[in-house]
Amino acid sequence: MNSAAFELLAKDGGARRARLKLAHGVVETPCFMPVGTAATVKGLTPAELRSAQAQIVLANTYHLWLRPGRETIEAAGGLHRFMAWDGPILTDSGGFQVFSLESRREVDDDGVTFRSHFDGSLHRFTPEKVIAFQEAVGSDVAMVLDVCVKLPSARDPLEESVRLTTAWARRSRNAGASASTLLFAIVQGGLDLELRARSAGEIVELDFPGYAIGGLSVGEAREQMYATARVTAAMLPEEKPRYLMGVGTVPDLLEAIDAGLDLFDCVYPTRCGRNGRAMTHDGELNLFNAGFTRDFAPLDAHCDCATCTTFSRAYLAHLFRNKEMLGPRLLSYHNVYLVDGLMREARAAIEAREWTKFRASFAHPSTGSG
Amino acid sequence: MNSAAFELLAKDGGARRARLKLAHGVVETPCFMPVGTAATVKGLTPAELRSAQAQIVLANTYHLWLRPGRETIEAAGGLHRFMAWDGPILTDSGGFQVFSLESRREVDDDGVTFRSHFDGSLHRFTPEKVIAFQEAVGSDVAMVLDVCVKLPSARDPLEESVRLTTAWARRSRNAGASASTLLFAIVQGGLDLELRARSAGEIVELDFPGYAIGGLSVGEAREQMYATARVTAAMLPEEKPRYLMGVGTVPDLLEAIDAGLDLFDCVYPTRCGRNGRAMTHDGELNLFNAGFTRDFAPLDAHCDCATCTTFSRAYLAHLFRNKEMLGPRLLSYHNVYLVDGLMREARAAIEAREWTKFRASFAHPSTGSG
Repeated sequence: MNSAAFELLAKDGGARRARLKLAHGVVETPCFMPVGTAATVKGLTPAELRSAQAQIVLANTYHLWLRPGRETIEAAGGLHRFMAWDGPILTDSGGFQVFSLESRREVDDDGVTFRSHFDGSLHRFTPEKVIAFQEAVGSDVAMVLDVCVKLPSARDPLEESVRLTTAWARRSRNAGASASTLLFAIVQGGLDLELRARSAGEIVELDFPGYAIGGLSVGEAREQMYATARVTAAMLPEEKPRYLMGVGTVPDLLEAIDAGLDLFDCVYPTRCGRNGRAMTHDGELNLFNAGFTRDFAPLDAHCDCATCTTFSRAYLAHLFRNKEMLGPRLLSYHNVYLVDGLMREARAAIEAREWTKFRASFAHPSTGSG
Repeated sequence: MNSAAFELLAKDGGARRARLKLAHGVVETPCFMPVGTAATVKGLTPAELRSAQAQIVLANTYHLWLRPGRETIEAAGGLHRFMAWDGPILTDSGGFQVFSLESRREVDDDGVTFRSHFDGSLHRFTPEKVIAFQEAVGSDVAMVLDVCVKLPSARDPLEESVRLTTAWARRSRNAGASASTLLFAIVQGGLDLELRARSAGEIVELDFPGYAIGGLSVGEAREQMYATARVTAAMLPEEKPRYLMGVGTVPDLLEAIDAGLDLFDCVYPTRCGRNGRAMTHDGELNLFNAGFTRDFAPLDAHCDCATCTTFSRAYLAHLFRNKEMLGPRLLSYHNVYLVDGLMREARAAIEAREWTKFRASFAHPSTGSG
């Protein structure tokens, strides 16, 4: 693993402009990673992801482990070939999903045993097995197995999650072997800044090629998330990539970039796309609102994506009202295009030292994602 | 309406190679029309339909009448602009759908009153209203309102359906006014060849720019459908386009072309695409079969569509098993591409006087669509 894979190109206030070299290509940051849980960004082809300027996609170890399973992906020649995406892939560790199972999992010092949400079958994750899986499928970036606690939470479970997450990060550091897979560790600690500092200090000492902030966007208020992400980001080394997990609304992304974070992922753009919620330069739109049925304007007048340049709001609203699958497809494309376009604009603004001005241009109240 | 819009270019045995000039473009026949019921060929964009060599799409008057309704489509600037398809569109008359409603509709000599399957609201179709609707939305080809009888049927309802269908065709002929919309009439009569002859004779006498065979693929055995379509086709004038409604499997299309029919439509390729059933040059495949989970070959080795050249059977099977919307999308595209490609090959074979040889190349038993 080569920590020189990350190059910091510019800073403007807290915002960073950097470049991350991975086995399957270069990722310019700030960068949003569309989520392809089951080896597919829902509804979109790899060619469309490219045209939406996606540079790297995320896939979920938990889901791929269960279906189609490691053997099938290896037989396909790896995850890239299986899903026909030749750009970089980051896989999460499955920790977040497994700990979301609650009554269906049991954690011990060595790992976590859980039942599949598909068929109830019993499985076990250890830090080593999770790294081996991610390396076997050919991830460009693998995440360590962490312990994620739902918020609000008492201090004890958070402290225990930090203890185990560090112990597992250490084992993962020793287990990671592939030169083509960068290993990122995860800071936990909930909203407790003392625990965040402990967690960050412990994993930074282990010297990973990149660091993520986990355990946020899991039930806390937005302002709490903002404050914790900002303080935690500052605990991480300047010369390594910083990844804020689970963030994907426009206001959240702008805040996170301003806090000095580089990488982001979230199902938000595609989930909204499937549910008729459009992300636009002027805020979000619910296509089920009656007003759109005769609105022949494009979804977002400032967007040049194929959805906005081809179809009207009225047509998209018609598709959603009639449960036509073209609707989720077209809107998911637009939302990913919009978010990845926002990242491109953010990179240019940071380079031009115009980040503050750029960010302020989104300050209109209707930009909220409520 | 201009009957010179149809030009017969070549014949080989019973198979015809012709050209139909419509307001939004030329249609080379034999031609399969993908079905876009609610102003969308399910899951596919207009650009994809073009790349799949679709020349004309079908939309359903019944569905569009109810949602989004004539006013919205007119406000959009017509159906072409609403759905962003600039090629020809054929709209059916809604007769087939309304008569499928059975207990929810009541027919009289003047028209048919029915309740929407969406919300139970009451609507009325007359021959004139249905033509006016199709002209208002800008159809290139409008179909007359007909009376379709489910098979098997006693003779009386069939005879009554022929009587009303002719009467309504006469009224439609007088009602049609738009120079840019060709009006096609429909032959009914079930499997009763005497009634088919009566129906064909009556509507041919009314002199329409094109004729369709309706009332087939509605419950009868395949061999009965083949025999009736073949005999009925021969009752229609050589110099007019002949459209067999509701046919779309590979064997059915080959048989129908051989019987001298020119135009076809069916939900079959897209419905199969949504359900994991692949149409291939070597017969049909069910992607839910266990054997495909580790089959990394392309869906159809003889197909050069984007689905076949990009993804494996194993990946497509994975998408269907996980209810991922990319599966229906990719497979619908392939199936439409395959059927429209078959039409292109059929046209070339007829031109080269190699139709019989071409057709025989599909005679392998696994080509069946059972």
